[in-house]
Formats: sequence, C-alpha cells, structure tokens
Amino acid sequence: MKINMGIDVGGTKVLVLVLDNNYNILSRAKGKTLKGGATPEETCGAIKNLADDALEKAGAKWSDIVDLGVAVPTSIDPQSGEAFLSPALGWKNIPIRKIMSKTLGRELVIENDANCGTLAEHVKGAAKPFKNVVGFFVGTGLGGGIIINGELYRGARGLAGELGHETIKFNGRKCGCGKRGCLEAYCSKTAFAATLHKNVESKNRKTVLSKTSSAKFKNLRSSDLAEAYFDGDELVREVLEDGFYMLGLATANVVSILDPECIVYGGGVVEALGNSIIKPIKQGFSENLFGKKSSNTCLVISELGDDAVPMGAMINAKMRGKN
Amino acid sequence: MKINMGIDVGGTKVLVLVLDNNYNILSRAKGKTLKGGATPEETCGAIKNLADDALEKAGAKWSDIVDLGVAVPTSIDPQSGEAFLSPALGWKNIPIRKIMSKTLGRELVIENDANCGTLAEHVKGAAKPFKNVVGFFVGTGLGGGIIINGELYRGARGLAGELGHETIKFNGRKCGCGKRGCLEAYCSKTAFAATLHKNVESKNRKTVLSKTSSAKFKNLRSSDLAEAYFDGDELVREVLEDGFYMLGLATANVVSILDPECIVYGGGVVEALGNSIIKPIKQGFSENLFGKKSSNTCLVISELGDDAVPMGAMINAKMRGKN
Repeated sequence: MKINMGIDVGGTKVLVLVLDNNYNILSRAKGKTLKGGATPEETCGAIKNLADDALEKAGAKWSDIVDLGVAVPTSIDPQSGEAFLSPALGWKNIPIRKIMSKTLGRELVIENDANCGTLAEHVKGAAKPFKNVVGFFVGTGLGGGIIINGELYRGARGLAGELGHETIKFNGRKCGCGKRGCLEAYCSKTAFAATLHKNVESKNRKTVLSKTSSAKFKNLRSSDLAEAYFDGDELVREVLEDGFYMLGLATANVVSILDPECIVYGGGVVEALGNSIIKPIKQGFSENLFGKKSSNTCLVISELGDDAVPMGAMINAKMRGKN
Repeated sequence: MKINMGIDVGGTKVLVLVLDNNYNILSRAKGKTLKGGATPEETCGAIKNLADDALEKAGAKWSDIVDLGVAVPTSIDPQSGEAFLSPALGWKNIPIRKIMSKTLGRELVIENDANCGTLAEHVKGAAKPFKNVVGFFVGTGLGGGIIINGELYRGARGLAGELGHETIKFNGRKCGCGKRGCLEAYCSKTAFAATLHKNVESKNRKTVLSKTSSAKFKNLRSSDLAEAYFDGDELVREVLEDGFYMLGLATANVVSILDPECIVYGGGVVEALGNSIIKPIKQGFSENLFGKKSSNTCLVISELGDDAVPMGAMINAKMRGKN
C-alpha cells in the first residue's frame, strides 16, 4: 500500500490527512495542539499520536508513506528547516524539521501553512484553472501564499508571502507583531475581537457575542462570528464587513504588484462565512484598484476548507521531492 | 558592424543609446518628448530623428541594429504591444508597438520603463550580484520593476510591478490616479511639489524654491530639489525625508511579500540626490519591517543613472528575442 500524509499544525488544532497519489482523502484525525509550556518535542509527540490514529483508520502503516508534508504557522528556512517565529506555539528559531523528523522517525518536508493552503487551492481547489495565484488565509492571524507560474514562490530566504504584515494604513492600528497599520490588525480573528471589544467598551455598542464570549472577546470562534453575522447582529456585520473591505484593499495592492490571475481566500473565518463575505472584499478591491485592466482578476473563496493546508503540505512534499 | 539600440521615451525627455553586445555605450542622443497635442505618430517621428542622430554619432546605420528595445512610461500588453495608460504622453490603449515599428521601419520590443531600469540594474548595475530584485524609480511619478530568478516578472497581463499605486495609507493623500493613499502620492516629484505648495500656502513655511519655481511648484526639477536639499533648505529636507521614509515603508511591504535579496532605487529624483537619501529610506524600512530576518535585504542606489532605462530596454529586447 502506497499512501501519503499531510499534517497541519495550527495554533489551536492539528489536522492529519492520509491521502492517495491523486490527493483523495483516505482518512482524517484531528486534535488539539499541545501548548502552554509544552516543548516542541512534546508538541511533536502529540502529533505523532494523531498521525498513528489517521494511519490506523486508513488501514496503513508508517512504512507505507511515500511523501510526508507538514504545515506550520510560521516561515521556515528552506535550507535548515528552522521555524522562524510562531507566537501561538511559542516557537522562535526552533529546528522544527529536525525535531519532527526525529519524533516521526522519517524524512519530511515542512512549509508555512498559508503557502500550503494556496498550493492546494491551486492544484486541487478553487484556483485550479490558474497559473499565477495569491492566497489570503484569515484565521487567528492572516497568512498569505504566492504561486508563480504554477510553483510556490518562497523568495530568497523563504519569507515571501507574509501578506498579513503589509502596512495598509501608515500610523494605523497597532498589530500583534509590534508594527502599526498591518493588514492583520484589520482582518483577522484577533483584529475582530479587539474591534468588538473597543466598540462594546468605549462606544457602548451591543452584540449577541457578549453573552457567549470571554472577556475582551478572546477565544472568539469563527463559528460564533459567522452565526452572529448571519443572524444580522449589527455590530458583528459592521466589524466583519469593514475588515474584509480592508482585505479587498490589500488584494488591490497585491494585484498591482504581482498581477496574478486569481486570488483565493481561505482560513477558519472565511470557511465559516463562506461566499457571503466576497461582497465587501470585492468592494474594497474595486474601490482601491489601480487601473481597470486588472479588474477581471478572479476573486474566489476556498473550495477545500480545512483540508487545504494539510493537503497542500502533502502536495508540496511531493513536488519538492521531485526537484 | 553589429550594434543595438535602446530608447527611453519619458514624459518629458527621450534618450537614445547605441550599444555593443556587452552593453557598452557607443553613442547617445537626447531630446524633448513631443507632447501638447502631438499624435503618437508625430511623437514617434521625433524619436526617429533622435535615433538617426545617435546612429550617425556611432558611425552606424539602421541595418546594423541587431536588437532594438523601447521603454515607455506605461504598462504594455505583452501580446498586442498596446500602451495601457500614460497621462504624461496622452496615450490610452494606443497600439504603440505597431505605430513605432512602422515609423522606425523595423521590429522592436517595447516594455514599461521602470521594468527596463530594474532589469539593467540587475544585469549591469547596482543589483548585479542578485537574482531577486525589486526596483523603485522616482521621477514625475513612481514606477516599479520586479526581477524573479534573474528574469523580468511581468504578471498575467503585463501589469505587474505597479509599485507606485500600492495603498500605504488608507484614506490618505489623493493620488493623480484617482485613488487615495498611494505611495506615489507621498514619494514622487508630483507629491513633493504638492506638499511644498501646501506648506507654503497654508502653513506660511518658506523655501528657496519659491523664488525659482513656477506657481504651485509645477515643473519642479530634480536638480533644483537636490540643490535646495544640499543647501539645507529646511522645508525641502523635511518634505524629501518624509517622502523617502514612506518609500522605505513601501520597501518593507514589498520585502514581506516577495522576499528579494536586493532593492534598487533610481529615477531622476534619486539620481539627483544620490546616496544621501538612503538614510530616510532605511529608517522607513527598518521601522516598518515585519520580522528581523529580512533586515539584511540589500538597499542600494542605482549605478546606471539615466542610462538604466534605455539600456534595460535593449537588454530586454535581447533577452526576449532569445525566448
């Protein structure tokens, strides 16, 4: 039996997929990411247990795996396999490929999660017809990926595609990264939580989410945001639509720079809101686009949902293995 | 005799270079761009006269030209050779390759000017050691060019590299393109003129340039700006340093997106100010950069000056001829 594995190590969840060579999913295993003082070795140990589960469900064993790809929420040094910086996992300059490879007992290819998600959408999802694609993934933060001429573009140091930390408003909102005016400070779960909190605290606005959410809207879930949005909660609608308008503006920027054929939007928040959120994105895009020639750029919502990232990790492992 | 020709059709000036195959310059001819109601055919006719001069100086004739490249201040459709939009030349969707080819009586390769300038700096100038390069050219407006893996990156529709119209301040200054907050509205001769005018008119500030410049600082020359800057004119220093700080911020954005090894700055204003302007650029860059890993990106001033664009037009013609 020949199978492949893709693993998405997120800030809160781990998703393991077992796939055949045509990217069909044979089994899934999902669990929480070990955090809160866990060492990278412990985090990887918990991932191994999930991978064991997924293999068992597929009736396969470790030696059946041809390609193994892992996605992580940080940039990766392409040479050393070192994780650059993930505040969510407490990783900073950690030799994660080495640690994970030792724990799982085999070679693997590791890559940034949004890069993987964009690659999967290009190969198997909503951006399939296009050779030049940019992906925006909105979750706790905002990650990006770039496909040029059918290949993942990593840049000179593997740091390309950090679309969440592009400044779109000089001297604007404070971002978690320490800078001001980053896209992530306008369009991410962290940004939505902060804006909701500010409106409730300082402007005395109301939202149904106040009842179910913890203080300052921390631990806000995408599904709760989406439910409030679809129920017509006025503040939630405003905050989400303003945020996705800014994502449209950032889309116009990246189109002026890279002139791709297609932009794909994914990640937990987009997955929960679905196609309903494309309207403010398109408004932000068209109102801030330079020239009209690029207005036919195709803006689409992810088709693969949560599977995009682990599937892309596996596709990336397969592609890189061949180079 | 085998020679090549590169022509830079700027908003105000035309520069023709005759070059050998090693990009050594054999002769130059410079003149004003025909504007003010001139048809594209008339503009091209005047360019032909300059090209005749340059050939004569080099002791060459039209049939000696192997590769002929032309640079224009607008995006070009790679298939049709149509000029997208140049307000300076009054061109909008003009089949410029066809018109120029007919006037000059031979085939030619036409390309955006900042793309050409970046290519020349990569092949022969300040960005020579690097495979992934981004160029910013500050003149009347602000143009950009992108080199990926040693090749000019044009994007899906030939519109890539429009770095001047990236929004860096949502709801910021009005740009000539109709949008708000574009980089070009902060760092270009047009932007500097507008900011000087605003400071003199509304804030009663003084500058030596008021004596020599026309109303509202229109027709402001790069050399005058540089002279006032080096003479310590306080307002001019402030305006230029603020503008180039914003260029540094935009540099940080493009580094987060593309992760190139080198950024090169050229164009008339940079040419006049030289290396003295790198300090505010570097400040804007370091204060707005995401992560420290990209802080070793090489930021350099153009080595080729005014020759970069026509030389790049010729290099581009040579490279494309081979594809």
